[in-house]
Amino acid sequence: MKISEARPYVVERLKYALNPRSIAVVGASRYPTKVGNKVVAELMEWGYKGTIYPVNPRAKEVLGLQAYPTLRDIGKEVDLVFVAVPAHLVRSILEDAVAIKAKVAVVATSAFKEIGRGDLQNALTEYCRRNELPLIGPNLVGMGSPYDHFNCGFIPYLPVPGPIAMISQSGANLLAALGTSQEEHLGMSFFVGLGNKADVDFAEFIEYADQDPRTKVISIYIEGLDSPEAFVKSCRKARKPVVAIKVGGSKIGVKAAFAHTASENPEGDDYYDRVISEARAYRARMWQEFLDVSLALGYQPPLKGDNVVMITNGGGAALLSCDHFERLGMPLRELKDISPLLAAKIRAYMPMFGSPLNPVDISGTAGVIQYKGAFQQAFRDPNVDGVLGAICPTAVTDVIGVAKAAVEVYRSTRELGKPFLMICQGGGECREAIRLLRDAGIPAYLTAEQAVTAMVALRKAGK
Amino acid sequence: MKISEARPYVVERLKYALNPRSIAVVGASRYPTKVGNKVVAELMEWGYKGTIYPVNPRAKEVLGLQAYPTLRDIGKEVDLVFVAVPAHLVRSILEDAVAIKAKVAVVATSAFKEIGRGDLQNALTEYCRRNELPLIGPNLVGMGSPYDHFNCGFIPYLPVPGPIAMISQSGANLLAALGTSQEEHLGMSFFVGLGNKADVDFAEFIEYADQDPRTKVISIYIEGLDSPEAFVKSCRKARKPVVAIKVGGSKIGVKAAFAHTASENPEGDDYYDRVISEARAYRARMWQEFLDVSLALGYQPPLKGDNVVMITNGGGAALLSCDHFERLGMPLRELKDISPLLAAKIRAYMPMFGSPLNPVDISGTAGVIQYKGAFQQAFRDPNVDGVLGAICPTAVTDVIGVAKAAVEVYRSTRELGKPFLMICQGGGECREAIRLLRDAGIPAYLTAEQAVTAMVALRKAGK
Repeated sequence: MKISEARPYVVERLKYALNPRSIAVVGASRYPTKVGNKVVAELMEWGYKGTIYPVNPRAKEVLGLQAYPTLRDIGKEVDLVFVAVPAHLVRSILEDAVAIKAKVAVVATSAFKEIGRGDLQNALTEYCRRNELPLIGPNLVGMGSPYDHFNCGFIPYLPVPGPIAMISQSGANLLAALGTSQEEHLGMSFFVGLGNKADVDFAEFIEYADQDPRTKVISIYIEGLDSPEAFVKSCRKARKPVVAIKVGGSKIGVKAAFAHTASENPEGDDYYDRVISEARAYRARMWQEFLDVSLALGYQPPLKGDNVVMITNGGGAALLSCDHFERLGMPLRELKDISPLLAAKIRAYMPMFGSPLNPVDISGTAGVIQYKGAFQQAFRDPNVDGVLGAICPTAVTDVIGVAKAAVEVYRSTRELGKPFLMICQGGGECREAIRLLRDAGIPAYLTAEQAVTAMVALRKAGK
Repeated sequence: MKISEARPYVVERLKYALNPRSIAVVGASRYPTKVGNKVVAELMEWGYKGTIYPVNPRAKEVLGLQAYPTLRDIGKEVDLVFVAVPAHLVRSILEDAVAIKAKVAVVATSAFKEIGRGDLQNALTEYCRRNELPLIGPNLVGMGSPYDHFNCGFIPYLPVPGPIAMISQSGANLLAALGTSQEEHLGMSFFVGLGNKADVDFAEFIEYADQDPRTKVISIYIEGLDSPEAFVKSCRKARKPVVAIKVGGSKIGVKAAFAHTASENPEGDDYYDRVISEARAYRARMWQEFLDVSLALGYQPPLKGDNVVMITNGGGAALLSCDHFERLGMPLRELKDISPLLAAKIRAYMPMFGSPLNPVDISGTAGVIQYKGAFQQAFRDPNVDGVLGAICPTAVTDVIGVAKAAVEVYRSTRELGKPFLMICQGGGECREAIRLLRDAGIPAYLTAEQAVTAMVALRKAGK
């Protein structure tokens, strides 16, 4: 439900959603196939450090923990109330939560506005707002943080730690992002599913994320934007970059967005272009772009000029990159135009048949020494604003060795404030190199176009 | 060098490039760090069944095989001569190859036209054409086929077997595709790097691939198209779909393409749009699209109408898909407009809060039974032209179980000739499901947009 700006009491309370000292799970079942059981199981399995209070009127114990018939029976302070009971029971649970002075309520339950029961949902919102109990959801999967070993919801895994605060209306896409994080080391500071966002809105999580010291970029997946003014205000206030993907712009998507998270989209898609641009956020169009740009803005500084030097051992990645840079309106410039001396300096690190154009092709025979030399020359040249490296696996390329060399160069040149991105197009060793590079803070990508898109996003951030 | 059409003697000889009974490796070194050594080592390691003749004037043996001072000393029939010696020695090797009546010559050596020595390269071409010895290369990485355990060149791995003939001018991008094949089960029938393509051209490999019974789609990575007429003729003659990616269209890309594979691009990029459209081929713009569309056209029939039904357990993938279908000019239609009865039939497989719109959201609780039922209903409806499935990993989703169910449904509905694509956005279990689905002939993708792009490509093929 609409807010005109982020409410300070909500922002202040969100720390209890993401780092609670105690959690009551209402609807905690004894049966392992039930979602209410899984919430408790995941909390325990991933190493939650606080206290868990299962609430279940028909159980004495859930997964070895003492269970309570109602919230009121707990008799201790409860930070977070996680609600996983049928829709018609939610109101009375929230009344109990208010009564015991819980800090925040998270409602996972579905079957509210998204199936036409907006009345039921609005009544909950009004009740919670009147009693200043922030309500997250309903119709969500949960939240967590890899730093705190905190996994609260129907969530099969935690992401790897990193800079991205992932704030998603869709549960399924949030889970997809978490799975990708594990596989591809897309590092996150915390994540949350907002579902129907009956009460707590994007703006409030944006302000929370802006204060969170582990978060370096705020990434938001939007199906419906009920409170565009609040969104714009909070984004503009944030000192951290914001990446937003707004879906449901298509004709049938408008209906699907309503059916999914009760999101209303009375405005055309152009409207969201204007809102997101007014918010000074980056608008991603596609899922992969959303993840890729988030990673780049999370780890690297903005690109302050157009002088990007690309260093590669293969012409294929070079050509894909040239074309994509031009497609995105930021064509690569020739090395001689960027810095007349640089070409000669880099020449020392390539064989006769290499090409000191830009992309600089140090050839398929390039090893660690050639890469290191070329990278260092590029970083140290005062005319160079950013460096894009590519490792193509040839039969003689030490992909992991080159990735390690890239990390070394990055560590010694980082204070120059020049963005460094990498491309590793290929098989198993490339995927390993990507994880290694990302763990060291270098956004690395599986295709040339992904890296180029990310570099252009860094340039937008630099303007 | 330009040809006006595919030359029959060349097409006929290409079987010796891809399935030779014997190979002479000229420049086969005893030292494992040398590329000439790696060619022999890879052939042996991957299980080449024919005879290998290392040629090296200073060695008696290479990797345990008898070595010969020159090609003329072998004294047996040689199908393929693989040349990995410095540029100035290549001419005399080719003279020997002609003398011993080798069937085809493959020249890996660099430093020809791409560094300004077009004169040297053209002399080789003219010599080979005069003597009807097809010359593949120079400046290439090699070729192979997983079906024949054949890996000939500087190639660290074979792809998994499948329908795609991968014909690439770039070596690095070819290797990237092979690595991706291993990791993501992008199945290939054969692959070849063409490099500078001084003699043998795309057209000839297209005609060979069209005859090859294992190939179902012909995928071509182009940096320069010297012989557009021949290309168009061969594509139009082919009974199999052709997917082409043409790079080097950007201003700096024109120079990079020359430096890489001596490719000349006197025409603007629009020209290639026209050529590829005249060839009735699909033009991919980006690397990922190139691979994704190749897979779809390789495994699935064309989509004969616009009525695609999407079945998903998560609204996030649904929304990304809706938007991307509309972005590509093929919006999804509502289920009730496709088939009034289908919504009711599918309703039986979803809970109350599911959505029978289109995408059909059978909800996060959906299991194998729900998926199977929904898929079957969709396939059997005469108004449905194709099905797009999505599996989102929730805490209760049996991702692998659903993938296996999809394979079962596919096997029993395959004769209907309706394309079936899948989306699995997520972590490790999704990647496993993708491999499982692809192994069964169902193109499955890691993001919604990739699958939608592939479905739209199938529709183009159906028109």
